[in-house]
Amino acid sequence: MEIQDLSREQLQERLAALTEKYNEYKSMGLKLDMSRGKPGADQLEITNDMLDPTFLGDFKTSNGFDVRNYGILDGIPECKKLFSEILDVAPENLIVFGNASLTIMYDYIAQCMIFGAGAEPWAAQKGIKFLCPVPGYDRHFSILEHFGIEMINIPTNENGPDMDKIDELIKDEKVKGIICVPMYSNPTGTTYSDETVRRFASLKPAAKDFRVIWDNAYCIHHINNNHDKLLNIFEACKETGNEDYFIEVTSTSKVTFPGAGISVLAASDANIRAVKSRMTIQTIGYDKINQLRHVNYLKDKAGVEAHMDKHAAILKPKFDAVLDAFEKNLAGKGIASWTNPNGGYFISLDVYEGCAIRTVALCKEAGVTLTGAGATYPYGKDPEDKNIRIAPTFPSRDELCKAVEILCLCVEISAIEKILG
Amino acid sequence: MEIQDLSREQLQERLAALTEKYNEYKSMGLKLDMSRGKPGADQLEITNDMLDPTFLGDFKTSNGFDVRNYGILDGIPECKKLFSEILDVAPENLIVFGNASLTIMYDYIAQCMIFGAGAEPWAAQKGIKFLCPVPGYDRHFSILEHFGIEMINIPTNENGPDMDKIDELIKDEKVKGIICVPMYSNPTGTTYSDETVRRFASLKPAAKDFRVIWDNAYCIHHINNNHDKLLNIFEACKETGNEDYFIEVTSTSKVTFPGAGISVLAASDANIRAVKSRMTIQTIGYDKINQLRHVNYLKDKAGVEAHMDKHAAILKPKFDAVLDAFEKNLAGKGIASWTNPNGGYFISLDVYEGCAIRTVALCKEAGVTLTGAGATYPYGKDPEDKNIRIAPTFPSRDELCKAVEILCLCVEISAIEKILG
Repeated sequence: MEIQDLSREQLQERLAALTEKYNEYKSMGLKLDMSRGKPGADQLEITNDMLDPTFLGDFKTSNGFDVRNYGILDGIPECKKLFSEILDVAPENLIVFGNASLTIMYDYIAQCMIFGAGAEPWAAQKGIKFLCPVPGYDRHFSILEHFGIEMINIPTNENGPDMDKIDELIKDEKVKGIICVPMYSNPTGTTYSDETVRRFASLKPAAKDFRVIWDNAYCIHHINNNHDKLLNIFEACKETGNEDYFIEVTSTSKVTFPGAGISVLAASDANIRAVKSRMTIQTIGYDKINQLRHVNYLKDKAGVEAHMDKHAAILKPKFDAVLDAFEKNLAGKGIASWTNPNGGYFISLDVYEGCAIRTVALCKEAGVTLTGAGATYPYGKDPEDKNIRIAPTFPSRDELCKAVEILCLCVEISAIEKILG
Repeated sequence: MEIQDLSREQLQERLAALTEKYNEYKSMGLKLDMSRGKPGADQLEITNDMLDPTFLGDFKTSNGFDVRNYGILDGIPECKKLFSEILDVAPENLIVFGNASLTIMYDYIAQCMIFGAGAEPWAAQKGIKFLCPVPGYDRHFSILEHFGIEMINIPTNENGPDMDKIDELIKDEKVKGIICVPMYSNPTGTTYSDETVRRFASLKPAAKDFRVIWDNAYCIHHINNNHDKLLNIFEACKETGNEDYFIEVTSTSKVTFPGAGISVLAASDANIRAVKSRMTIQTIGYDKINQLRHVNYLKDKAGVEAHMDKHAAILKPKFDAVLDAFEKNLAGKGIASWTNPNGGYFISLDVYEGCAIRTVALCKEAGVTLTGAGATYPYGKDPEDKNIRIAPTFPSRDELCKAVEILCLCVEISAIEKILG
């Protein structure tokens, strides 16, 4: 029965009952954190063996290079080969970086700001804009805001962003790009449909220095056996010749160790050349010991997949705990909807319109930290104040069950409060 | 007897004899490399034990943080403590970065270009300049050239750069900074005198957004027992209040593993705040597993010094081999002078004026690769064409002896050719 169908008295009664329950939780002095897409302690144990020096062998790469010394700017050959299998991109179109794909994205945009992307520096072209599929990843938006790039929201559905809207907006040559997570999106878990990827590959932007930051962070992060599939953007571009528009990144942050993994950029020949020419100035190369350690441990694509299955075995019960609680406490009430992703790190929860900030605040008071309301939108402003990103990975399953119970209470309380006015 | 005192006939005879010897070497098909400041294979072995996972213990930092997960932006506490001892700078004035101090410098200058250093972005202030003590480090010059910053040569002597000239030039508010290696300078091995450091601390630049990149790469890289001492720039600034002008960097690239070490920035409170505020956008933090591995292995300043003694034991015979050959083959001839450093990675050789390019080319033909002539000057232009950076560390001692023998021949041949005209 939908909440809206209840009478004012029924609503007030229900609010009183829920508030009593809420106050019980509040008095427990809990401290639960569902705010960050951070692996849990048990996930960290999976990769410990990689730190055994046997995985470094005689420190030599397949081309005879000693990883303990200077040299090799763009990644050791076996590491490129591994990512080549994972991303289905030729090794020569890959560069292996340091410990974070976030830094690759930051640096790439910084490069465009200072030196441009084949045209005038972005910084010199006043009033430039980026399109941001929403809800999206707060750290993407932070980078764009940091550089003073205006952000425009693009709504998304189960197939990805609204491509008609994108086609329309890129007629403005001030629109320089799009930043997105095409597979198991943060936070909705959406994987762009083949049709959406093909439309990306066929974009006709007015700006000749247009770039899509294709953050494929979760390309191998399935949480059940029903794997999504993402069409390879560079394959799709073979028909359109648009490969220079796309900068793809991924990393092993949530494969091996967050903060001590390796990251990679995939791009067209021309873009690889441009990035390498900056890198010769910016760095003496990245940590090749860590690259060799990763490759010898993970071996190949099959090895990576087997490793990811171990993560999935830990993650699935956590996602299920959240989804079961939502189903039990929120389904059919007309006050919330949520995603049920096949991979990634998040569940996207839409609460009753105008209630996200209040829900997060109520949770906070009861000791449950959620990602801030609005974080999934540019400038932290959710125009409907309804989206909350749920990160089920870091707490233990017991903590999670308690936290989500409280969350459901707060969702309903804030909805009733809203309806009562 | 000086070459210049020989008659034309004597010179021609000598040239013929030297050329004969040179041609013998040339026919050997040698392949010797003295071009890079790269540790030798034996130096890499010193640190292998650090890769043992026992140095990671239970993965916890001194404040109870798991280094295998996300978190801690500016370095784990014990790592800051270690660098605090080494640089004599408070932990809160340090940030631990990734594997290369070169990247810290690049990123810092990029930050000044895009966002400024407390004033208008450098990129928006057309025609900005940096002062470059010469001979200096080619990669410093490459960064400045990359960003389109005009470079002005500052001559140096055994006390450091010509401070009178610097005082004069910084009256121009377009002069935004200086980049230098204050201890065991690349390539001369000079350590700035206390007086020089105090004059740096007392600089009165017209530009309020003035910055000195104080690349203290070799602060612990002694090669004999006669250690140079560098006055602490931040101590010196305590009397002048100029601490905001200085950005100090160093790294363990030549302490542990080149490319797999850790780097650090030391700066004033205000500059640390500015850099951290960029870092919150740019990165999820650096490799903390590698930080913990380093600290647990090196332990403290005394541990680092003991470790550096092992490097010195390998390096001293190599430096001696070069210096002995110079003494034997070039001394008293009036065609070359060279430095005899107490630390660092280089010997700076000044050949007969106008002969550096020719010397390097002759060496190349005989299979000996040197750092390119001119590399020690901005834009690769040595105005007197006489400085050559000698990097004795990478070849084995036998290779080195052969290479330096050939180098001495080429120095003399090119000088005689020049005199003969």
